[in-house]
Amino acid sequence: MKSYNKVNVIGTMRTELHDKLELTGAEISVNKLPVGEGVPFVHAHKQNEEIYFILEGTGRAEIDGENVGLQEGDWIRISPAAKRQFFASADTALVYVCIQVKANSLENYTAADAEAVITDFSGRPPEVYKLN
Amino acid sequence: MKSYNKVNVIGTMRTELHDKLELTGAEISVNKLPVGEGVPFVHAHKQNEEIYFILEGTGRAEIDGENVGLQEGDWIRISPAAKRQFFASADTALVYVCIQVKANSLENYTAADAEAVITDFSGRPPEVYKLN
Repeated sequence: MKSYNKVNVIGTMRTELHDKLELTGAEISVNKLPVGEGVPFVHAHKQNEEIYFILEGTGRAEIDGENVGLQEGDWIRISPAAKRQFFASADTALVYVCIQVKANSLENYTAADAEAVITDFSGRPPEVYKLN
Repeated sequence: MKSYNKVNVIGTMRTELHDKLELTGAEISVNKLPVGEGVPFVHAHKQNEEIYFILEGTGRAEIDGENVGLQEGDWIRISPAAKRQFFASADTALVYVCIQVKANSLENYTAADAEAVITDFSGRPPEVYKLN
């Protein structure tokens, strides 16, 4: 596997990134619900936590029967068993990211998982990294 | 744990979502690098795959010494051991999401992990779900 993969996604109705990026710890999709439309089913998950991120537009989610308003910049975690359905509002499309990860799979993160590499592997002095 | 948590993040320099959303399968941060600035260190991870999503601006990443241009709509997966560093360009700030997940932790996803719930738990006829 390459040390990284990159793809650009703008303006599609639905793009699934798992295979495109060779993801091993998540599935991620970028989605657009047209004005006034909703996902045509309610769904839940077996073991995956879902995290939604609203990029554009407004709408609402029904989560276990509760109505949750949605706007740009909103992030929502949903437990695997929760019943969920997303809707765009009557006057804007809803563009959002959906991230699926296995619930309780994360062991460490940020400082506990990262190692700062002080060595300047590109041969430039470290202070160059402070400003571009 | 509640069946969902929600938070709105717009315009901050760095917001970490793990605790705010009670995430169990990921850490997610929303970050802004000011015009001309870079993260002041190179880093790698022990067990986490990182996925970056560029929201605004342009910049570049150095990944294992390779220069990778960045623009809005770019998604990048980076293997745990890869050495990485992100920079905003000289004329725009770089706003991006960083998702950390445990590499190889995802077992099933989408159709294999989801269960469609046909029952209309809110008491409305199913056809209501098709349009908002």
